[in-house]
Amino acid sequence: MEISATVPVRDREDLSLAYTPGVAQVCTAIAEQPELVNDYTWKSQVVAVVTDGTAVLGLGDIGPEASLPVMEGKAILFKQFGGVDAVPIALATTDVDEIVETVVRLAPSFGGVNLEDISAPRCFEIERKLQERLDIPVFHDDQHGTAIVTLAALRNACRLTGRDLGDLRAVISGAGAAGVAIAKILIGAGIGDVAVTDRKGVVHAERTDLTDVKRELASFTNKGGLTGSLEDALAGADVFIGVSGGTVPEPAVSKMAEGAFIFAMANPTPEIHPDIAHKYAAVVATGRSDYPNQINNVLAFPGIFAGALQVRATTITEGMKIAAAEALAAVVDGELSADKVIPSPFDERVAPAVTKAVAAAARAEGVARR
Amino acid sequence: MEISATVPVRDREDLSLAYTPGVAQVCTAIAEQPELVNDYTWKSQVVAVVTDGTAVLGLGDIGPEASLPVMEGKAILFKQFGGVDAVPIALATTDVDEIVETVVRLAPSFGGVNLEDISAPRCFEIERKLQERLDIPVFHDDQHGTAIVTLAALRNACRLTGRDLGDLRAVISGAGAAGVAIAKILIGAGIGDVAVTDRKGVVHAERTDLTDVKRELASFTNKGGLTGSLEDALAGADVFIGVSGGTVPEPAVSKMAEGAFIFAMANPTPEIHPDIAHKYAAVVATGRSDYPNQINNVLAFPGIFAGALQVRATTITEGMKIAAAEALAAVVDGELSADKVIPSPFDERVAPAVTKAVAAAARAEGVARR
Repeated sequence: MEISATVPVRDREDLSLAYTPGVAQVCTAIAEQPELVNDYTWKSQVVAVVTDGTAVLGLGDIGPEASLPVMEGKAILFKQFGGVDAVPIALATTDVDEIVETVVRLAPSFGGVNLEDISAPRCFEIERKLQERLDIPVFHDDQHGTAIVTLAALRNACRLTGRDLGDLRAVISGAGAAGVAIAKILIGAGIGDVAVTDRKGVVHAERTDLTDVKRELASFTNKGGLTGSLEDALAGADVFIGVSGGTVPEPAVSKMAEGAFIFAMANPTPEIHPDIAHKYAAVVATGRSDYPNQINNVLAFPGIFAGALQVRATTITEGMKIAAAEALAAVVDGELSADKVIPSPFDERVAPAVTKAVAAAARAEGVARR
Repeated sequence: MEISATVPVRDREDLSLAYTPGVAQVCTAIAEQPELVNDYTWKSQVVAVVTDGTAVLGLGDIGPEASLPVMEGKAILFKQFGGVDAVPIALATTDVDEIVETVVRLAPSFGGVNLEDISAPRCFEIERKLQERLDIPVFHDDQHGTAIVTLAALRNACRLTGRDLGDLRAVISGAGAAGVAIAKILIGAGIGDVAVTDRKGVVHAERTDLTDVKRELASFTNKGGLTGSLEDALAGADVFIGVSGGTVPEPAVSKMAEGAFIFAMANPTPEIHPDIAHKYAAVVATGRSDYPNQINNVLAFPGIFAGALQVRATTITEGMKIAAAEALAAVVDGELSADKVIPSPFDERVAPAVTKAVAAAARAEGVARR
């Protein structure tokens, strides 16, 4: 990637406009009327893609330098799909408070913050603290991007099969960043019930080994009071959502309810191979590009930020996330099939639809500044 | 300004190369061999333009948001003149240690740090601490950019008039960032003597009102032991260098040695108007684009960083700065006149010449990593 000037600097006149002395007038105007920074600089169109390199793809804690290719790739996708400028910021600290302080200090230069590849449970605390302290959108894509695309696919799976979200019981394998966020958005969207499992089985309030985040998770999930293993939870479940890696044995899959939805999103190896999933499920999705129904964050984050920046939203609310999922799902309304519950990442209707929905939701929820 | 992708993302194959799963291989390679980050990401071609907004142009402490237009203008000049990518980073803190910590944490993402518009004497401490802690170039342009271009103009003024730098006595009006750096580079380049003045007159060791920086300045300048006012110092001086603002009265100018050089660089109002300066001086330069001999930092910083980044220098040494000044001066070797002791900012020979000289000097001084 590279920086490009959007104005020419060909002669002394251009130079005196783009830089001294002309720039002094722009500075003075912003000093007098701070919100003009959004009109007169690139602040309102640029997002910091911030990581500490602790949870990079499936590679784990590989450090900030080694995480940069992901941040740079993300920046390119931001531009390509959402028209949003993004700058990779890989930090040389893994301390929660240091990360928060650093991002707060950077905030004057950016219109939004996309947190990326930060390990759980630190990612939750960092996001919450930043949201409290900043008046620009802070969005941990590994959580909410994944959650939004998953909800969109689930909406369309329901539409396709004539079912209602409120009648479904889902099981999420994985209580990390994505699992927690998916549980929250599904509940916000009105799912019947959802249980989350970690390596020790269903997350429930009687367990004594829970982190704070999982304890909170136990408090608002699993209305059915499940207590066993992932396999136990899957018996009779309508939806499987895999964001954990690992493999679910076929006998467990076979116990799911008839016409189940299986979203096995681990990369590169889905928790349930699509060939097995198709034996038991009405709709199958994965995280891979070589199977139909790819749950890919690029369907969400460019439009989410484009919409939020467009109206200079102060935050990204749950309502904006659900609106993004609805808009994303609606793109393939007339083309729904078991192999197309979610648009392709290259469907050019996606980003504009998500952008528009997010901007409208921000206005409706009173977090838009214009 | 905006971000541009240098690779296309047109289809699933491009996407899987630029982002997951292909990017994982790049990350793994860097994790195993950290220096590959320079080959595989934009780190080695991107500079953070860092400010706290405390000394913006002549406007003073206008805060980080209001300083952003300057940083963005600078970023555009970096690209246009040096082919260097640069990202505006205006920080929401003015605390020296917080600024240092923040930049240290940002460093994994950048190949260099250009400090900008940070007030003296804080700027000296910030630069020194960052240079101690980072293995990438840290360069406060208000100091060294100005100093390099000034030295280049002075070299050519000498060449033009057949004089030797070692025979000249210079007076610098202004003991801020630029004044201190100009004094240092002139001494490094072998000037006969240089005295620096602040609002209270010549900076000398007997004064009891000096900051640490000025005390240090007194220790290595003013061999002649001057003690009076700027006017006193100017009597018989060969060179006036104005980086202070304010006005020098004509009677003081008239007492300078015959054939003096007057570089009155305050913007927009030179300390000595060129019409008056020309009555007493052989060579006159200003900071303005509408008079000949504009001392403009854009002649230095793009090539300085381009050269340092090209060889992945760990720092920018005094030798690299002097080499930059020599190369800049040499560009107009065959075209020297009293109205052309320094090239135009739009002279396309400048940046390549500076880049080459800085890269060579970095190698010669053992600070190049390739």
